[in-house]
Amino acid sequence: MSDGNGFLLHVDSSADRRGEVSVTRRLTGMFARSWRERHGGAGYRYRDLVAEPVPLVGSGYVGLGTRVERQGVVPLEKVAALAEGAEEEREWALTLPLVSELREAGTVLLGVPMYNFGVPAALKAWIDRVSFPGAYTDPDSGRPLLGGTRVVVVAACGGGYGPGTPRADCDFQVPYLRAYFGELGVAEDALHIVRAELTRAGDMPGLARFQGLAAESLTAAEEAVAGLAARP
Amino acid sequence: MSDGNGFLLHVDSSADRRGEVSVTRRLTGMFARSWRERHGGAGYRYRDLVAEPVPLVGSGYVGLGTRVERQGVVPLEKVAALAEGAEEEREWALTLPLVSELREAGTVLLGVPMYNFGVPAALKAWIDRVSFPGAYTDPDSGRPLLGGTRVVVVAACGGGYGPGTPRADCDFQVPYLRAYFGELGVAEDALHIVRAELTRAGDMPGLARFQGLAAESLTAAEEAVAGLAARP
Repeated sequence: MSDGNGFLLHVDSSADRRGEVSVTRRLTGMFARSWRERHGGAGYRYRDLVAEPVPLVGSGYVGLGTRVERQGVVPLEKVAALAEGAEEEREWALTLPLVSELREAGTVLLGVPMYNFGVPAALKAWIDRVSFPGAYTDPDSGRPLLGGTRVVVVAACGGGYGPGTPRADCDFQVPYLRAYFGELGVAEDALHIVRAELTRAGDMPGLARFQGLAAESLTAAEEAVAGLAARP
Repeated sequence: MSDGNGFLLHVDSSADRRGEVSVTRRLTGMFARSWRERHGGAGYRYRDLVAEPVPLVGSGYVGLGTRVERQGVVPLEKVAALAEGAEEEREWALTLPLVSELREAGTVLLGVPMYNFGVPAALKAWIDRVSFPGAYTDPDSGRPLLGGTRVVVVAACGGGYGPGTPRADCDFQVPYLRAYFGELGVAEDALHIVRAELTRAGDMPGLARFQGLAAESLTAAEEAVAGLAARP
């Protein structure tokens, strides 16, 4: 179970693995540095979902997950005993460390660019694996285990998707993450989403006229990230 | 460029690779059999995104894609000449066959279960790779190349996400695919989405009372798929 003093789990999902152009990697890096300066490096964990992709869930995951779900909420330590066959055991061995890591984190910091209106496949592979049935519910009380976890999402999108823009109904990134983490049991006031918009304004001829807005959005995002990093 | 007589590209993304419980694999299989009976097997291609995952896009994809995008619409056959270094070349070698396959298909049949409110990571990995800048736009006319392509999405979701249900605003599967394929240039009347809902009603205690609705939804989906398969 998580508490406010847990470690920082820093997760990046931008395809720009070397961080040459990635806005999200730069901003999560800023947050992480600030956090380490205040808390030291011991409570810091980093996961690069592109450098080390989370394997796609397979038949064994579905089989084990379905069996567990039929029983209601199964405590994490009793799941292994329900696995049938080598494939389910292998899937669980891939899943348990990621689930445990998420449950134990005090703060989860996610770098999430928008790709094709949604979150990157790299992040979705992590989501599809960590979202094991019942893993974030207290088996005794039925209450969410992530109720004390702080989630900071640093998002970026190449265009503009805000309310009133022509693409407002193509935003399957931020609304998606709100729905997903809400379902996982993260408290609404513990979920912080910062987004830099129009980050491709310098690359895409059609967006060139929005370069001023893009710069403003980036500055606002940097300030928001700095503010969040300075809080406990 | 695609035409109505092109081949059938059948793409599955359910984690249940052996198809033991997957609704989408069963229904896309039904469509594909019917199609092959009418057209023969020669024009049929199958892609299992779980058995053979599409590698995540990386820095080389971003670098090449950005360079191409700055130039406007670059014809597919001229992209290779713009690649700089082995990493970009490798990324393009992974991308071109998938892009070409999608461009040349007459009908694209996709099996898409809902995982954690969205499309499976396996499908998103394909989407993130095939959506190369400019690849579906005619460089001369600027018109969409997929204007004549028929897309049949066979979707499934474990719960109920229809209008009026408590989870209606958690559906990031069907609205997402509509937005994505619309952006790609697929005509609205050529995009057919069939969805079986409440497919987990038999597994999840909380959904047990919806088993009747689930059976109705499945029957309706089967009929819709059979109807679509019988059309040209």
